[in-house]
Parts: sequence; structure tokens; C-alpha cells
Amino acid sequence: MPDPKPKRPERYLSGIQPSGQLHLGNYFGAIVQHLALQQAGNSFYFLANYHALTTVNDAEALRGHTFEAAVTYLALGLDPARAVFFRQSDVPEVTELMWLLLSVTPMGELERAVSYKDKIAKGIAPMAGLFTYPVLMAADILAYDSTCVPVGADQIQHIEMTREFARAFNHTYRSEVFTLPTHRLSVGATVPGLDGQKMSKSYGNTIPLFVTGKPLWKLVSNVKTDSTPVEAPKNPDTCNVFALYALFANATEKAEMAQRYTHGGMGYGEVKKALYEKIEEHFAEARVRREQLLKDPAFVEDVLREGAKKARAVARAVTDRARVACGVDR
Amino acid sequence: MPDPKPKRPERYLSGIQPSGQLHLGNYFGAIVQHLALQQAGNSFYFLANYHALTTVNDAEALRGHTFEAAVTYLALGLDPARAVFFRQSDVPEVTELMWLLLSVTPMGELERAVSYKDKIAKGIAPMAGLFTYPVLMAADILAYDSTCVPVGADQIQHIEMTREFARAFNHTYRSEVFTLPTHRLSVGATVPGLDGQKMSKSYGNTIPLFVTGKPLWKLVSNVKTDSTPVEAPKNPDTCNVFALYALFANATEKAEMAQRYTHGGMGYGEVKKALYEKIEEHFAEARVRREQLLKDPAFVEDVLREGAKKARAVARAVTDRARVACGVDR
Repeated sequence: MPDPKPKRPERYLSGIQPSGQLHLGNYFGAIVQHLALQQAGNSFYFLANYHALTTVNDAEALRGHTFEAAVTYLALGLDPARAVFFRQSDVPEVTELMWLLLSVTPMGELERAVSYKDKIAKGIAPMAGLFTYPVLMAADILAYDSTCVPVGADQIQHIEMTREFARAFNHTYRSEVFTLPTHRLSVGATVPGLDGQKMSKSYGNTIPLFVTGKPLWKLVSNVKTDSTPVEAPKNPDTCNVFALYALFANATEKAEMAQRYTHGGMGYGEVKKALYEKIEEHFAEARVRREQLLKDPAFVEDVLREGAKKARAVARAVTDRARVACGVDR
Repeated sequence: MPDPKPKRPERYLSGIQPSGQLHLGNYFGAIVQHLALQQAGNSFYFLANYHALTTVNDAEALRGHTFEAAVTYLALGLDPARAVFFRQSDVPEVTELMWLLLSVTPMGELERAVSYKDKIAKGIAPMAGLFTYPVLMAADILAYDSTCVPVGADQIQHIEMTREFARAFNHTYRSEVFTLPTHRLSVGATVPGLDGQKMSKSYGNTIPLFVTGKPLWKLVSNVKTDSTPVEAPKNPDTCNVFALYALFANATEKAEMAQRYTHGGMGYGEVKKALYEKIEEHFAEARVRREQLLKDPAFVEDVLREGAKKARAVARAVTDRARVACGVDR
């Protein structure tokens, strides 16, 4: 079926989980893609604090995480003049849309959702919020007439579900209320953690963003390496330190460093030093901006409020369209 | 556990299903109880059009039913100066609350809901809206700090669920956001239909409210009776016409009519005539008011908007309390 709306520039939508201190894994895995996409000038990014309620049950912690995520993105270069940047909960229209969608969503659709089953398997309590979350996510996507959602492979099913719900609503009410979004597979780099496993908060092997000086050196020097002696040639392709260094280095630097590995005569300490310097340098500006932002929460709040105002205007129009289509307008 | 709020006058809440033309069964089964409770001066009545989306998928029909239900209640004496009377969908705060509640609602609670199983058993499509409806209902109740919900026996479980969800939220967030409501068993009269079964739209055996003249007489004369001859004594307790007559008559009239049954010499035509006259008389004023209201939809709309304004002010305050408690306020 062709898209019911006339062609217009892509509108990208992305949700950011406010789940505490972000680290290099988040940065190379998702944040750089987000920042790159804002160049398109038609992106909506929201801090998914409604979603976080399904796992965080502490108000102070949630507020803190949300603020931290906002500061992190702004420090790293999210430009509120280019992308609409806001808190999910500042646009309660999405919960209205959620109800309208729930009434046309077959239970079977939700029961098939892999992410729910995965979370339950991991021991997360089977709450109705977790079960119905795909419908809130669909509302988030549809509320802004988003045309494209950059996702990791594990999220493709959610975009397919969103298309299903939107199609069901449009069909049930013989309307063209919702724009059917597509997904765009956004494969970020996999970043090794201190122990060589994928860097992840749940493995406790992260290098948090913005760590600097001695604490940063301590983390970097702890990256696991093998016991090849200094003088022996080393394999860059199996080395965690090299993998991390490669994320920051340009092509020439990478090639040079790889040669020093295979040539022999270089200890891991030296690469770690090079990595340490890269990290310090890469985030130097962002660290300064972050310190400024942390001292000025009112500014951050203003940015989010302005973003919410823009987002809400779009969401209100879409929600009103949906209300008229199903007859709860009056 | 004692109620967390200091004692104040009961606030009654009731939802009215906008499901087409109302009939004598609705009137004696629920409407008269609603009208009686408004004397308490602290009642909230809403037209449950969000809920109706789980069964009505036609916008024009839903608008029509909602308007019809509003007109019916106003014609029958609902006084907007006493009771807060509004459309459910005019207070979208309830969908916000619904999401906050969903995230503390165990799936098991919803899976146990009898009304969902019943509806599925009756062949209604298993939609997620139907499954999660108890949470929206809880939001409707909690949004107005309701203390008491008049319900039929089949709805008691929903009030118990509401208490569970409210308790779970208050407990999870160590707060006293929600007032725990109680139910009040409100047993309306069971009204026989034309065929002697319970009067119900789904049996096609109803006498709609406001029918008058020839069409009313046609319906009344069709009420099923036995074939006892005119001169023989008759049993009022097994007679559908008597049961209907008894709903309108005062004690003296009832006793007199019962005596004429047991005495013999009276044909069913006579009782039907008496019933017909009672119905004509009972709804005479309401019929006139209804005709006026049907001609003035702007007035009805104003009443509902005024009601929504009052309801929304309360719901906004409660919802904001809940948002602060779980940390999605900022």
C-alpha cells in the first residue's frame, strides 16, 4: 500500500532512555548517529521518561537520569535549533493516542512482541506497562507524523507493530489519520568494555562519558590485554585497547598504530596512553559545556520546554485528527 | 489500612455507556439511582465514550449515542448545577493517569478480570483496549478523588482492582497520591422485556424511553401474557405487565391492581391500558424537555463543556500529584 500522505522530507524520531550515566558504548552505539541525523533538520528526539517508569520506580532517580541525559546530549552537540528535543512526558497527547490505538490493537499483536518476552525472561516484573509499551511507542512515533525511525535490529519489530496499529486505525475508521513510518537500520559500533565483553552498564565494564584525569587513566589502564611481551609483535584485531583506540582515531592514525602492533617493540601501556589522550581530547569541549550546563539547570529546563512546545503543537494536531476520526471529539 | 485522606463527604462517580437508545430497563436499572444520588451534591457522571471505542467503531454513531445519552439524562432531570456531568474524552488526563497506573499493574491482575473473559466468551474481539480497560476505569475513578462508586454486582471486581492499582502506586512511590474508593452496591430493579426475559437491547425486547402514542401502545400491547380468560382470577406475581406496571405505580395503586388480578373479571387489555397511561404520564415532562434539548445541541454542548471544565480541574490536580510522585514532572 502506498504511503497515504504526499511525499515530504523525512522526519526522524528517536527516543533516548534516561537510564543513568552514559558511557562510550552508548556514545558510539547510538549518540553519534543521533547527532549526525540532526543535520537533516527535521528530527524529533525525546527523553523517554514515561517509558523509564516500567523499570525505574524512584522519582528522584528518574528526574536525575532525565536531566543527566539532557545535559549529555546538549554537551555533545545536540542543537535545539535543529532538532526538536523534549521530554516524553511533556507531551501527554501520546497517552491519549495510546488509548485510541489500544482499542484497535489485537492482543495477539502484543503477545508476539519479542522485547516483552525477553524482558520477562531477564526477570523484569511482568507489568501491564511493559506489555502495552509497544502501543505507547507507536503513539510516540505517530504523534509527530514521523516518517523514519532509526533503530537497532532488536527494535525493527516495534516499527512493524507501529505500522500495524496505524494501519488498523486508518482502516477501522476509513481515514488517513496516521502516517506509516519506516525504519532505518542504524548500526552503531560495538564497543568493548574493560573486560572485552560488550560495554554495558549491566556488566559493570564501562568507561563513562566525561571521566577525565586520574580516574580516566585508571579505567583505561584496566582494559584487559593479553600477556604478549613488549618486544613481540601483537595482533591489533584481537586487542580491546586497539578496538577502543580505533573508534577515536582517523584512518592514518589507525593504520600507523596497527603497524606498531604487528612490528613489535611496543607495550600495551603505550597504546593505553594513546587511547587515554584520545578520550581526553575528544570530549574536552563537551566536558566544558557539560560543566556549564550542570550549573545552569534552568537553561536546560528552558530548552526542554521550548522543545516540548514545538512537539506538542504537532502532537495536538495529530491527536485531534485521530479523535475526530473515531468520534470522541464531541 | 485506613484511608490515607481525612474524612470528607462522599464523592460519587459513575460512568454512563453511550450505547444508543436507552430503554425502561436502563431507566429502572441504573438511571433512577444516578438521579437520586445527585441529591448528595457531590457526584461526577461521565459519558464513557473512550470506553465505547472498545465496541463502537463508527465515529458518527458514537457521536450520536453520546449526544443521545446526554440529552436523555438531562431530560430525565440530571441537574448540571448539582452533579458534574461531562464526556470522558474531554478529560484526557485520565489517559495520562492510565499510563502511570499501567506501569505498576501486574499482568496477572488484568488476566484475572472476569469482565474481559466474559466479553471474549461472547465473541467480542480480544483487543488490547478491552484487556486494559480496567486500568482506564481505575484512572477515571482515581482522577476525581472519588470515594464511592455505585455499581452493579458484576462491577465490584473493577472497584477492587482500582483499589489494588491505587495501593500499588501509593506503595511503590511511598506517597498518598490516590484516594482508595469503595463501592456501593446499587441494585436496580430487573425489568422484564416484551417477551418476559430481562429487558435488553441485545434481546430486541425493549420499550425505549420517550416512545409515545400509537408506537408506545403497540409495544405495550405486545407484552407477553398467558391465556387465562378474562373472567378467571390471575396471578400478578407471574405477569410481565403487572411487573412493569408496578415500577410506575405507588403502593396503593399496586395493591388495588393486584386485587383486581386475583379477583378475576379483568382482561390483560385493561392492565396494558393502565401501564400505557402510566408510561405516558411518567415521561410526559421529560419528553417535552427532550424535544427542546434535541433542538438545541449547542446548549447540550455547553453543559458538557462546563462539566468538563470542572472535572478537568480536579483531574489535573490529581494527575499532577501522580506525576510528581513518580518523577515525570520534569
